[in-house]
Order: sequence, then C-alpha cells, then structure tokens
Amino acid sequence: MTNSHIKEALQWRYACKKFDSTKKISETDWTTLKDSLILTPTSYGLQLMKFLVVQDPELREKLKAVSWNQSQVTDSSHYVVFLTRDSIKEEDVKKFIDRIVEVREVERASVEGYENMMLGNLVKAPHPDPVNWTKKQAYIAMGFLLETAALLKIDSVPMEGLDPLAYDKILNLEGSGWTTAMTVALGYRSQDDQYQHAKKVRFLEKDLIEYI
Amino acid sequence: MTNSHIKEALQWRYACKKFDSTKKISETDWTTLKDSLILTPTSYGLQLMKFLVVQDPELREKLKAVSWNQSQVTDSSHYVVFLTRDSIKEEDVKKFIDRIVEVREVERASVEGYENMMLGNLVKAPHPDPVNWTKKQAYIAMGFLLETAALLKIDSVPMEGLDPLAYDKILNLEGSGWTTAMTVALGYRSQDDQYQHAKKVRFLEKDLIEYI
Repeated sequence: MTNSHIKEALQWRYACKKFDSTKKISETDWTTLKDSLILTPTSYGLQLMKFLVVQDPELREKLKAVSWNQSQVTDSSHYVVFLTRDSIKEEDVKKFIDRIVEVREVERASVEGYENMMLGNLVKAPHPDPVNWTKKQAYIAMGFLLETAALLKIDSVPMEGLDPLAYDKILNLEGSGWTTAMTVALGYRSQDDQYQHAKKVRFLEKDLIEYI
Repeated sequence: MTNSHIKEALQWRYACKKFDSTKKISETDWTTLKDSLILTPTSYGLQLMKFLVVQDPELREKLKAVSWNQSQVTDSSHYVVFLTRDSIKEEDVKKFIDRIVEVREVERASVEGYENMMLGNLVKAPHPDPVNWTKKQAYIAMGFLLETAALLKIDSVPMEGLDPLAYDKILNLEGSGWTTAMTVALGYRSQDDQYQHAKKVRFLEKDLIEYI
C-alpha cells in the first residue's frame, strides 16, 4: 500500500450523479465493502448501527420518490441505508458485553466493570443526545465505506438529500428502535455523468490545517 | 490495491491505548494523512471544518488534563483536534463559491444557482441543527483519517472522551465560530500496549447487514 495509491484513489473519487445501471459490484469487492462497515470503529465499540442493502426494485422506486427523485437510488449497484438506534438501552450494552465474552473467551465478571461504566454513562444517566451521538458513529462507517470504494475504483455517492422519516415509514422502522441516518449508493459511473470531468474543489491546505 | 490488503489493514487497526512517544510519523506519510482530511467529501462540499495539529508539549499537557488524563494526548506523534463551525453563515457559502470559481475557472454567474440553493437551505431558512450537522461531516473525515492510517500501518485512536468546552477554552476558540468536535491521536503503538493483542470484537455480519 503506497502513499500515491491512496492519494490517487481519493482524488479519483467524486460524488457520482449518474450510475451505469448495467454494471454490478462483484461479490469479492462487495465482501470488502461489507468488511469496511463491520470493522468500522465506534464509540465504546457498541456498534449501535445497522446497514440495509435495498435490492428490491419497487422499494428502491419508493425511496427514490422521497429522495428528491435522485437517480442514484434506483440506478446504483448497491444502495445502503444506514440505520442508527433512536435510544440506548440496557440490552444494547448487554448484547455488546455478551459478544466480548464470546469473541475473547473471557469470564463475564472480567468485563463487568466496563459494562457498568457504559450503563452508568449511557443508560442510568441517559446520554444527553443519543440520536445525534449514534448518527455521528454512522458517519465514521460512511467514511470507511467511501474510502474503501475509492480504493477499489468503485464509484459512490453519500446521500443526505432525502426524507428520513419517510424512509423510516417505507422501511417499516417505526417503533423498531431504528431510524434512518443517511445512505450511500455504490456502483459504476455512467459515461454520461459530466460531473466526473469537473475539477475537484477543496479549500487550500493552509485554510484547513493549522499547527499550534 | 487488493481486497486482502484493505481487509488486513482494517483488521490490524485497533484503538491504540499507549503510544511509543519516541516514534514519529514521516513527512511522506503525514502528507497522505493530511490529504485524506483535505479530500474528505462533505455535504454540499462546504468543508465547514478545520484541523488543529497540536505540537506544543505544554498545550498537549493542558488538553490531556481535560481528556481524562489519557496518555495518547501527549504521547502520540500527531494529535489532531477536529473543529467544526457552530453556525452556518452567508460568508461560509460565499467562500466556498469563490473557491469553486477559482478551481474550475468558471464564471460566478454559472454557480449562482448553487449558491442561492445553499443560502436558501442553510442560511435564509437556517439549518435546524447546524452544530450536529457539521460535526457529522467531521466524522466522515475521521473515518478517512483512521482508514488511511491503517493502510499505512500507522496506529491511531479516535477520542471522544474529553471535555469539548474546556478544549474550546484552552484553544482560544470561544467567539471564533469554531468548536471542538473530537480528536484523533496518531503514531506508533508501544510494545507494552496489551490492547494490541486483544481479539477484535465486532457483531456478526448477519446482525449488522440486512438485505431487503
């Protein structure tokens, strides 16, 4: 993995406006994209998120209608809806602790301190803003997914221009404890997408990075 | 760039608890890390964020004191504080439009529609929650930074366990329009850090990814 590879990939990527709907992501590449979502770090390691891959064309049409009719919803190879928890419950913490015990093959007693710390910080004294906190974690996952896609020369577009409450309704999430954060469409650019030729606009390094 | 390289890097990374303070990131690698921050996509492309690289040891000590005394603040090679705007102003939009005109060498008139759309959505009808919205964008940048670090075999730790208001005070941000979102410490793990040997805990794919 060289520096120039990474920079090249990040320069290459752009917010794809039009996908070639005939081109599909291979199973091998999709596995790596999935791994990026699964391996994303999250606060405490809690992973209060889930990823819905919408394959059903009718469902995609319905979602498109509440996404400003953006064609990427229906024309991308993979359309991923990022869900986050709308509150943090004792069972969320327990589920995570159970998983630590399972993966690391440790006694439950050895992780009870960590469990009580999380319960104290997030449940007993409820987190002041669980919705935004968990959504922020999902944006780390979004970063991982977009960077991995670029490294694999897969096009993508992060999408916030949608009605999350309408998504929740269409996806039957109401009352489930899950809510729509945002989406990412993945696939391959159409040759007609003029945006691929536009020069990337970023502020100068000196306006973004400061040494103190 | 192969699938196995990426997966290997993401499996290799962990939240570094103890850095080897004698090891520093090379200029070449730091340039790539910086590029990842600069090239991160953001909503509308607005880049309402800034990255402070804290080098002054005294300043790092002060920040450590309001970061639960976590050693990574002082022992990492590079300590990056992510700042975001606490509100979105007309000048933020104008600055971005100016930059588009500069980079793409287009007439200002050709991007006025985009400018007015942004002003309408974000300033005239103020964004309902600018602080959380801009912070979420910063988490995409966090994702890019952490993934790039892993690809370069540079250790990192994302840090939320700190007092952002105390950071704002120490960093003289009060009244500047900038506020502390979170931080990332980067460098090389200490051989004493036992966490590097712990098995990575993640939920199973079937609990995280669903096809519909």
